[in-house]
Amino acid sequence: MSDTSVDNPLRVGLRRERGVEPCVLVIFGASGDLTRRKLAPALYNLQVDRLLPRSFAIVGVARSPMPDSEFRTALREGVAAHSRRPIDERLWGEIEQGLSYVPVGDELDGFVRLREHLERLDRERGTSGNRLFYLAVPPSAFRPIVSLLAKAGVSEPGAGGSWCRVVLEKPIGHDLASASDLNDAINAVFDEEDVFRIDHYLGKETVQNLLVFRFANSIFEPLWNHKYIDHVQITVAESIGIEGRGRYFEEAGTTRDMVQNHLFQLLCLIGMEPPVALRADAIRDEKVKVLQSLREVDPASSHEATVRGQYAAGVIGDEKVIGYREEEGVDRNSRTETYSALELYIDNWRWAGVPFFLRAGKRLPKRATEIVLQFSGVPHRFFERRAAANSLTLRIQPDEGINLKFDAKIPGPKPHLQPVSMDFRYGSSFGQAPPEAYERLLLDAMLGDSTLFIRRDEVEAAWSYIDRLYEGWGNNGPEALPEYVSGTWGPAEADVLLARSGRTWRRP
Amino acid sequence: MSDTSVDNPLRVGLRRERGVEPCVLVIFGASGDLTRRKLAPALYNLQVDRLLPRSFAIVGVARSPMPDSEFRTALREGVAAHSRRPIDERLWGEIEQGLSYVPVGDELDGFVRLREHLERLDRERGTSGNRLFYLAVPPSAFRPIVSLLAKAGVSEPGAGGSWCRVVLEKPIGHDLASASDLNDAINAVFDEEDVFRIDHYLGKETVQNLLVFRFANSIFEPLWNHKYIDHVQITVAESIGIEGRGRYFEEAGTTRDMVQNHLFQLLCLIGMEPPVALRADAIRDEKVKVLQSLREVDPASSHEATVRGQYAAGVIGDEKVIGYREEEGVDRNSRTETYSALELYIDNWRWAGVPFFLRAGKRLPKRATEIVLQFSGVPHRFFERRAAANSLTLRIQPDEGINLKFDAKIPGPKPHLQPVSMDFRYGSSFGQAPPEAYERLLLDAMLGDSTLFIRRDEVEAAWSYIDRLYEGWGNNGPEALPEYVSGTWGPAEADVLLARSGRTWRRP
Repeated sequence: MSDTSVDNPLRVGLRRERGVEPCVLVIFGASGDLTRRKLAPALYNLQVDRLLPRSFAIVGVARSPMPDSEFRTALREGVAAHSRRPIDERLWGEIEQGLSYVPVGDELDGFVRLREHLERLDRERGTSGNRLFYLAVPPSAFRPIVSLLAKAGVSEPGAGGSWCRVVLEKPIGHDLASASDLNDAINAVFDEEDVFRIDHYLGKETVQNLLVFRFANSIFEPLWNHKYIDHVQITVAESIGIEGRGRYFEEAGTTRDMVQNHLFQLLCLIGMEPPVALRADAIRDEKVKVLQSLREVDPASSHEATVRGQYAAGVIGDEKVIGYREEEGVDRNSRTETYSALELYIDNWRWAGVPFFLRAGKRLPKRATEIVLQFSGVPHRFFERRAAANSLTLRIQPDEGINLKFDAKIPGPKPHLQPVSMDFRYGSSFGQAPPEAYERLLLDAMLGDSTLFIRRDEVEAAWSYIDRLYEGWGNNGPEALPEYVSGTWGPAEADVLLARSGRTWRRP
Repeated sequence: MSDTSVDNPLRVGLRRERGVEPCVLVIFGASGDLTRRKLAPALYNLQVDRLLPRSFAIVGVARSPMPDSEFRTALREGVAAHSRRPIDERLWGEIEQGLSYVPVGDELDGFVRLREHLERLDRERGTSGNRLFYLAVPPSAFRPIVSLLAKAGVSEPGAGGSWCRVVLEKPIGHDLASASDLNDAINAVFDEEDVFRIDHYLGKETVQNLLVFRFANSIFEPLWNHKYIDHVQITVAESIGIEGRGRYFEEAGTTRDMVQNHLFQLLCLIGMEPPVALRADAIRDEKVKVLQSLREVDPASSHEATVRGQYAAGVIGDEKVIGYREEEGVDRNSRTETYSALELYIDNWRWAGVPFFLRAGKRLPKRATEIVLQFSGVPHRFFERRAAANSLTLRIQPDEGINLKFDAKIPGPKPHLQPVSMDFRYGSSFGQAPPEAYERLLLDAMLGDSTLFIRRDEVEAAWSYIDRLYEGWGNNGPEALPEYVSGTWGPAEADVLLARSGRTWRRP
């Protein structure tokens, strides 16, 4: 047993602090990018913080045969290149001696060998029959893996209350129908409470801090509604392009790739009511209510509430970059968007009439994720010069923090107001690099705490909204999407989306 | 005429910007400390900013005869020693050629000579009969000066709408009766709208910014009431002692010297309702309503709502200092307080049940003036660890600024909240030293804008409250006041004052 107790801060007081039980982590896709860049460094840092159990093992699974030693070397290189803290040989050694590799294809016999291997580990390392299957594989592989796990009897909890859980990376489906089919297939093998759908945004400290910010403080919640908020902006900007993932991206597009998951998750956390308690299901009940309250878009008019665009050639930083339709794997006549902006409404008591503007895009001037609550103006104006409305900005990345903009008097006898701001920086305030999202998410999955994972009904409610947009876009879409020069803030049409109600996007 | 237009930022939009009209500033107490340290530097800096009219003169008045040249030299030395900006010879020369001195005692003939001198200046310098009399003299001299000004016909506005105004330094009286008598005497000569009672706190930028902060922003006012505020603290701490002013201070004490004026003015600005408009009288109407709404103290129980104390010997910084009763000019059995703390209530709709804790003291650990709005806790607690209540701190001096304290999640998987804060610093935000209070106040008096001056009914309402405290202290007072060691935060009884309702003073 670990000597360090941990718990989800969102659940304090509801459960005794406890550590991770003995278990085996089985990583499908062990030779992939995610394993090397994210999972290996996360596991190492959990070990540094003494958050892993003493009886623990990691089993790598992929198609090609390779000796354990090669798997160990690959993981070590991932840690060396991507860990936020340098490698300590002793701590790495503790992980390494629990590493093994099993080649598994799409035949049953590989899964049977995996089962035997896991049973051996239970005997040799005391891992007690608890398994966490991490599917770091393309989504098309989810269904066959889960089904073969069941057929080979790997996914069945053993005697004595041991557990089997599965972690899935996005995307969960491509639309409501495919997501629902996939969820059916998974739930045929794993109970919903054992399914951990990752949205790595939820692993970020600032995102977790949203609920603390709202519900551990008394001064924000009274302002957090239609009476004081004019509108909300949620921006996820990337400066990178599609990075060689042309074929994948052509099938997805920014709305499926970013809006349906990351932006909708942020929307839920900003918009939700206080939950019954800070328990996983109570929180997810409130989040799904936000999605269920979204005003339905009539597909015939989805063009009015949305703007899509594609990046054209341009300059990012000092580097010349090519346009989306020149990228490898992309159709020269592609109508897949690399930029997506939406105006939407949460039709409930709290948010009546408050527009939420969401935007996500690639090849924008910089990488930035932020939420802006733009407050309404003063009810009565004393000052000739119109005071700029107050705003609260929650910066998710980079430089996580919170900023409050208000008006102050410029010193001196002249009658001038000026917007100034108060700032809180997560990093400088706590003087340490926050843990990576994957550390927190892996730990929570091993603890069985699903607060920061997406429940089936959330995924499907989000698709249900997105599907209607695609229906509209598909039926009434333009011949070509508007373009925006790489390194600018998206197509001009996105500015019009706000300008028609007298609003403007905030520059992150 | 000045080519620079000015206006009161609190009145923007209500009056066209305009400059100071031609006038003469007559300073009674011309050889005194205030003139040298505050008025001379303020006048020089107004000239630097081109805020003084072209047709302008300054007449020094005091008892002893002295040549104009000596008065000029004294003022120049004051500027050199105390101006926030270095002397520019050309700009100083422009002021200097308008400087003259008239010796005036307490006989009528001196005032007649002053009148003749002013009439000569009107002819020679075009000052148009406009006069601002600045009484930088002990309060006992207010009444005779004003009365002789009238008798000699100096205080009467000339033909053509010229004006005569008077500026008074505190204290205005010693209690309600004496203040009322003095105000009667002054109003017998000057209309109330021509009387400018100075509280130099109102000249400070942060104090003026209070109304901007409250009424140019939409997000603070919804929280600014008993529903969200647990209590308010107003602190004016000084590290200095009585600085050789033993005889004066023995008559006054901290409650009269600081609370009745500075702290009550801050209380009014924090507590007032939005005024009808940002006009002098509309603002002062609201301020006086705060004082009129103060819950009456029963003198018999004034000991329960107040704490007074005297500093004992101690250490400030590295310096040993003596106790109050050892100071020169102080009675060895003195019962005059150097520390005063009050609990009071504004009995109106907005502030029902919210205690305001005011404290002022000498020989405290540091010089600091600040207002803390302590918000109530969250209505429902999700987190095991009690969240620290939010607070908003308005720092008046030193380092003027605003600080908002709230709870955030400490990065990492552990369930800890931590109070963090957002900070706004006036100096670093605007990158310039704000003007001195006296610059603003002199300018406004010359402009005839009395927004930042105290109206008669404000003074008297404040005394009316303070008088009842003294009545209680006098009738039921202890033999000796509690002492506090110099360099500490006042007597232990002041902590009890808050502790009995579970509250604590905030360390500035």
